[in-house]
Amino acid sequence: MLHGKVMVAQGGGPTAVINESLAGVVVEARKVPDVQRVYGAFHGVRGIVDEELIDLTQETTHNLEEVAHTPSSALGSTRDKPDLKYCQEIFRVLKAHAISTFFYIGGNDSSDTIRIVAEQARNADYRLRCIHIPKTIDNDLVVNDHCPGYPSAARFVASAFAGINLDNSALPGVYIGVVMGRHAGFLTAASALGQKYPDDGPHLIYMPERVFDIDRFLADVKHNFDRHGRCIVAASEGIHDGAGVPIVTRLAEKVERDAHGNVQLSGTGALADLLVNEVKSKLGIGRVRGDTLGYVQRSFLGCVSDVDQREAREVGEKAVQYARWREEDGSVTIHRTGFYSAEYHLHPLEEIAGKTRTMPDPFISEDGTHITDAFRLYLRPLLGSGMPNAFRLRNYMVPKILKKGDAGQAG
Amino acid sequence: MLHGKVMVAQGGGPTAVINESLAGVVVEARKVPDVQRVYGAFHGVRGIVDEELIDLTQETTHNLEEVAHTPSSALGSTRDKPDLKYCQEIFRVLKAHAISTFFYIGGNDSSDTIRIVAEQARNADYRLRCIHIPKTIDNDLVVNDHCPGYPSAARFVASAFAGINLDNSALPGVYIGVVMGRHAGFLTAASALGQKYPDDGPHLIYMPERVFDIDRFLADVKHNFDRHGRCIVAASEGIHDGAGVPIVTRLAEKVERDAHGNVQLSGTGALADLLVNEVKSKLGIGRVRGDTLGYVQRSFLGCVSDVDQREAREVGEKAVQYARWREEDGSVTIHRTGFYSAEYHLHPLEEIAGKTRTMPDPFISEDGTHITDAFRLYLRPLLGSGMPNAFRLRNYMVPKILKKGDAGQAG
Repeated sequence: MLHGKVMVAQGGGPTAVINESLAGVVVEARKVPDVQRVYGAFHGVRGIVDEELIDLTQETTHNLEEVAHTPSSALGSTRDKPDLKYCQEIFRVLKAHAISTFFYIGGNDSSDTIRIVAEQARNADYRLRCIHIPKTIDNDLVVNDHCPGYPSAARFVASAFAGINLDNSALPGVYIGVVMGRHAGFLTAASALGQKYPDDGPHLIYMPERVFDIDRFLADVKHNFDRHGRCIVAASEGIHDGAGVPIVTRLAEKVERDAHGNVQLSGTGALADLLVNEVKSKLGIGRVRGDTLGYVQRSFLGCVSDVDQREAREVGEKAVQYARWREEDGSVTIHRTGFYSAEYHLHPLEEIAGKTRTMPDPFISEDGTHITDAFRLYLRPLLGSGMPNAFRLRNYMVPKILKKGDAGQAG
Repeated sequence: MLHGKVMVAQGGGPTAVINESLAGVVVEARKVPDVQRVYGAFHGVRGIVDEELIDLTQETTHNLEEVAHTPSSALGSTRDKPDLKYCQEIFRVLKAHAISTFFYIGGNDSSDTIRIVAEQARNADYRLRCIHIPKTIDNDLVVNDHCPGYPSAARFVASAFAGINLDNSALPGVYIGVVMGRHAGFLTAASALGQKYPDDGPHLIYMPERVFDIDRFLADVKHNFDRHGRCIVAASEGIHDGAGVPIVTRLAEKVERDAHGNVQLSGTGALADLLVNEVKSKLGIGRVRGDTLGYVQRSFLGCVSDVDQREAREVGEKAVQYARWREEDGSVTIHRTGFYSAEYHLHPLEEIAGKTRTMPDPFISEDGTHITDAFRLYLRPLLGSGMPNAFRLRNYMVPKILKKGDAGQAG
């Protein structure tokens, strides 16, 4: 039963729609007669420990709706990965403020944090309802068909590569675009959804689900460049060699690691530059360019999937419904029921927490350097309505006069 | 008088609206009764020399309209900078195909090319009407108030930094975003149009119009980081030291140069990484991230200013009108007549060709690290309608219970 004071927080990397889930929680919780206060914690669990809390019961509905449509965590986020002591501290604050329900919007790590907090409450015989609300541009939560945040980021990546394809077609060469994704290639794979015509890029897609071999990569690029006179590559930042070592560490003098012990992959152009230099020096191709799509992938103001928006809102609303009518903790999950429709369930935290889903084999092409129609069918409806479309001129060739013998090579 | 066969080509870097100008030329030229054929050259002047031409008279109006809304040069582009011999070759092909009018859509270099071609025609007593149609995301053509292509790229940059500001606010640290622009800082300056609240980033903007000093830069970053707990920097790829040497060359082992002898600045993350490393090593700040916005700035599918779209179309249409009713070569120019309205003129090629405009002093703040309200007023109407907007939660602080003595530091 939802009553008294409830707390909501946001953790991990921001997404374009994470505030939809926040608004879903706040707007719904404020409708429940027995709920006195809805608190928000600044910067995730860090804000709870520091007692940096705001009273969202005093926020206007109109402003909540505007914030809902604004990308990136409005409450702030954190990369802290709480250990047992940290979780005890969280629990101590929740108890001091007489919080009855804790909603945590986040990915794998956040789901694990809330799992431990729930455990603390049970051990202390304190009635705390704990609900995890999914979000991650990596799309790597298990059980879920997909995760809120991913479709909008995928829409950005697809639109970016559609544009890059046009650019590269106008000024041909090799282009290498590095996309976010440490263990899961879902976001990098989204680059393929920008393709329309058969010779459109990306011609090669490298995901962390397959071992990356630099010689194989060079042969792939050469093959495509010889065929199309150009070649567009999409590579996950997390591509690694057979031993699991990220390719980017080949270059980095000192490698930065985060609180989870992970090598820093984002916020540097090192991987793209490394791959560009390989192609330049080994294949002798003139125009080779590399970009790292960077933080705009998850935060660009004005690129959002309306399907993603709606679902992110709904998982927030469902979380409140589950907290109200059910006597169990859990994680809200998304399940596909049609082409396209979805429904939601509440799943035990233990089965979600800390686990990582990667691209299933049927989504990856046989040769491991592209995606399949199964993936196209999976992703297309998630991108939402109004996806922009690219058109080409039809090539009605003019007969040559001065160079009559030459064959036309337009395009 | 516009008659017989006309030729259109696109040169230089693609933009989001360059095909609007193409459609403007083709659709209008096809309405002129005496025009028999409208030819398009593949990959700019390169396509003319190679006689890679298509007959745009056979294209459907509907497809032309769809192509108009597609970013990047539909005819393909070139970085070739024709010398006298190359221009003679262009002229030879135009003459062989009995071209009466040549429309060239491009920036400074393209305007110089068409100037030389026009000279060739005059020297040979061949009646060739030469019209330059402006486009450049750099916004650096002289005489013009602004250039088609710039507003859409500026909209992308403003939206990107608005999103990055939200992201950086959720997970604070130093963020350095590198924006295109070798000599002119207009596009980098556009990052400021993403600001809404007084403490929003970018907090620092470095443009090629001012000398970049690394120690001064570090002091600026430290000052802002101390004040806001975070700092967002926008830097032009073309920032240089007092001797005019690009900062990026400090790192690059071997520097790539283009046909114009310019150091390659785009398609590499080197400058952002260099600046990030300086901040990390000298200021000891933990979370420092760098992105290079890259080719999406000019080609992203789905980020366009409707004002830019309309004007790009109009300069194409005006070019045809000038060719039809006037007996002179020239460059179509844009002039501001209201807040906001614009009109077009035909200007002598000699006064545009090869010249570069940079940010005027009144657009740059006194300390050289930001922009002024004059620039905000200049750019805002060009960004077009429907610019997305970011909203914040209002911070109604909850009184602390466990840490009563602490002052709240929300936000």
